Amino acid sequence: VNPDNPPRPGGLFLGGTAYTPARMRVILVGFGSVGQAFARLVEQRRESLYAAMGLSPRLVAVADTRGAAVAPGGLSADELLAAKASAGTVGASARGVPGWQPGDTAALIRETQADVVVEASPSVMANPAPAMANLMSALGSRKHAVSVNKAPLAVAMPALLELARYNRVQLRFSGTVGAGTPVLATARTLAQGDRILRVRAILNGTTNFILWRMSEQGEAYHAALAEAVRLGYAETDPSADVDGIDTCSKVVILANAVLGRRVTAGDVRVEGIRDIALERVRAARERGASVKMLGEFGVDGTLRVAPGEVPSRGPMDVPANLNAVQFTMETAGEVTLVGRGAGGPETGAAILRDLVDVWNTTPHA
Amino acid sequence: VNPDNPPRPGGLFLGGTAYTPARMRVILVGFGSVGQAFARLVEQRRESLYAAMGLSPRLVAVADTRGAAVAPGGLSADELLAAKASAGTVGASARGVPGWQPGDTAALIRETQADVVVEASPSVMANPAPAMANLMSALGSRKHAVSVNKAPLAVAMPALLELARYNRVQLRFSGTVGAGTPVLATARTLAQGDRILRVRAILNGTTNFILWRMSEQGEAYHAALAEAVRLGYAETDPSADVDGIDTCSKVVILANAVLGRRVTAGDVRVEGIRDIALERVRAARERGASVKMLGEFGVDGTLRVAPGEVPSRGPMDVPANLNAVQFTMETAGEVTLVGRGAGGPETGAAILRDLVDVWNTTPHA
Repeated sequence: VNPDNPPRPGGLFLGGTAYTPARMRVILVGFGSVGQAFARLVEQRRESLYAAMGLSPRLVAVADTRGAAVAPGGLSADELLAAKASAGTVGASARGVPGWQPGDTAALIRETQADVVVEASPSVMANPAPAMANLMSALGSRKHAVSVNKAPLAVAMPALLELARYNRVQLRFSGTVGAGTPVLATARTLAQGDRILRVRAILNGTTNFILWRMSEQGEAYHAALAEAVRLGYAETDPSADVDGIDTCSKVVILANAVLGRRVTAGDVRVEGIRDIALERVRAARERGASVKMLGEFGVDGTLRVAPGEVPSRGPMDVPANLNAVQFTMETAGEVTLVGRGAGGPETGAAILRDLVDVWNTTPHA
Repeated sequence: VNPDNPPRPGGLFLGGTAYTPARMRVILVGFGSVGQAFARLVEQRRESLYAAMGLSPRLVAVADTRGAAVAPGGLSADELLAAKASAGTVGASARGVPGWQPGDTAALIRETQADVVVEASPSVMANPAPAMANLMSALGSRKHAVSVNKAPLAVAMPALLELARYNRVQLRFSGTVGAGTPVLATARTLAQGDRILRVRAILNGTTNFILWRMSEQGEAYHAALAEAVRLGYAETDPSADVDGIDTCSKVVILANAVLGRRVTAGDVRVEGIRDIALERVRAARERGASVKMLGEFGVDGTLRVAPGEVPSRGPMDVPANLNAVQFTMETAGEVTLVGRGAGGPETGAAILRDLVDVWNTTPHA
């Protein structure tokens, strides 16, 4: 079976146009490291997904900050990647949209026939409005939405979930927390047959790296931060990481998804680790503990982000820029999931996982 | 809504008997710590499960080694527990079956009307036949089966999966690996959108405790084993643990479920840790590693159980009697799940999780 040209149900005509089962048409917004990895992955996995479950995802529109490309029959990842590499935008490809304006994305989403919209532009916490408009445009035009952009979820997750429910489409976001490490799916599994009482999590690789260097190498905060920047783990402006904003947005997403708490970033008490004293890290180490940037919430109403201590050599004492999430279960005790928390290919895999979930939970021929 | 007496669809009569939607009738085989915990959990959670998804599981038959109790309308957990505590068998309860013989279990399963059979008798690797007969009787009479007994799966998992498929019922077994820690569900999630290349796992709490004591306390093998026995982590005959038999059966189950490899215990190269030299553990420690009893398999054909080393302070270096499973993913790198690997209540929660999965994936009114 050729996944690019799946069998058609008898050449059905609708309004003069041959009806072709598209097997999931996808609009992709954002073509940075995540979007590019996802576009590659879609092509790599199409054949095996079609063989396994009849799913053949196809990119029908892609927009980046400077341009867009549209092709109802499907865009080629190679062409998109080549245009991005040579001209800096997918708009330079053969399928580029002439006269494109950055503000056109929400209209493109609304007006393009598609099943799912993937919002993969960078999470800008200070300006969630553009991504918010994209998600609202997707859900409002009855398209499923997969967001790896945390910003709109952090400020308006309860409203977005409600909008999805109202339009009877799905809003998925498994790549926002833990990237390829399946934090949200594990939480759902755990909640089935047992009860999650509390979640304690290290959700930001940059701050974990800084605190780990301070503890292991005895480096001061600024030296450890410089090392993180040198290795590409931290931005030159590390505010979103060290001030706890990134962790806060992930805690909001988890609390909504895991405990059904209808909260937003404004509800979280946040304390970052900027300029944290080496003495504090050293003192913890002498007590057999490690200082970590922790996001915490629970059925008791806790909802906070702050530096805290975990036992050394326990499963939460993860090195380098790893993430770790510990669930305290009513019956099964503590269950901890450890893995990378970022990365283009990892996040691309999470998007594909969400598409498979959408496919498996939606009626289709 | 009263979950014990759910609304009936119009008093439909079938052959003169009022048809009552049973909302999942369960036969439970085995009433040790796991079976008892499961019976309690079913009563505790019935109301919330019914409210959330219309599922109201009811024990219609329970068998232990010495007796059985049957009640089509549902058995009371309290009565079963009281009979077990006072007389050593559920057969002593008011609903006890007179003239019960231990060999009657397979016939009881076949002849009792029920939706699911839970096989929760102890895993006896040297004698898998009785549990095997129970599962075959369940699947053969078109009942779903949930096994927390590893023995029949270790010797005949491919055949049992085939029998389930032939009879169009489900065989579930999430409690056999990791107890309440959702190892199998995490594997399924990870395989969606990414590819599992290799699994490396610590699946036996007893041997992890022994090796951990040897490494941390500098104790010799026999002293560490004695401590494990004293704390109730090891049986007085620890063969199944220290000779790798328990780990082997879990590796077989994982390899079948995670990679679709149709293997049995006979296909696994097994080396235990009986009488392992303290010197070996010490030498590893000096190299920054910990000796663990590892089960390993992968797409390259690896399938073995043997002592091996993991980096100290990494996520696989779990203390005491914890379990840990590390998945090496094609895209997402290494993802590690850590939690308790045994316990009656934990395993009871896993059974309930399987019942919820059966309920959610089966058509029902």
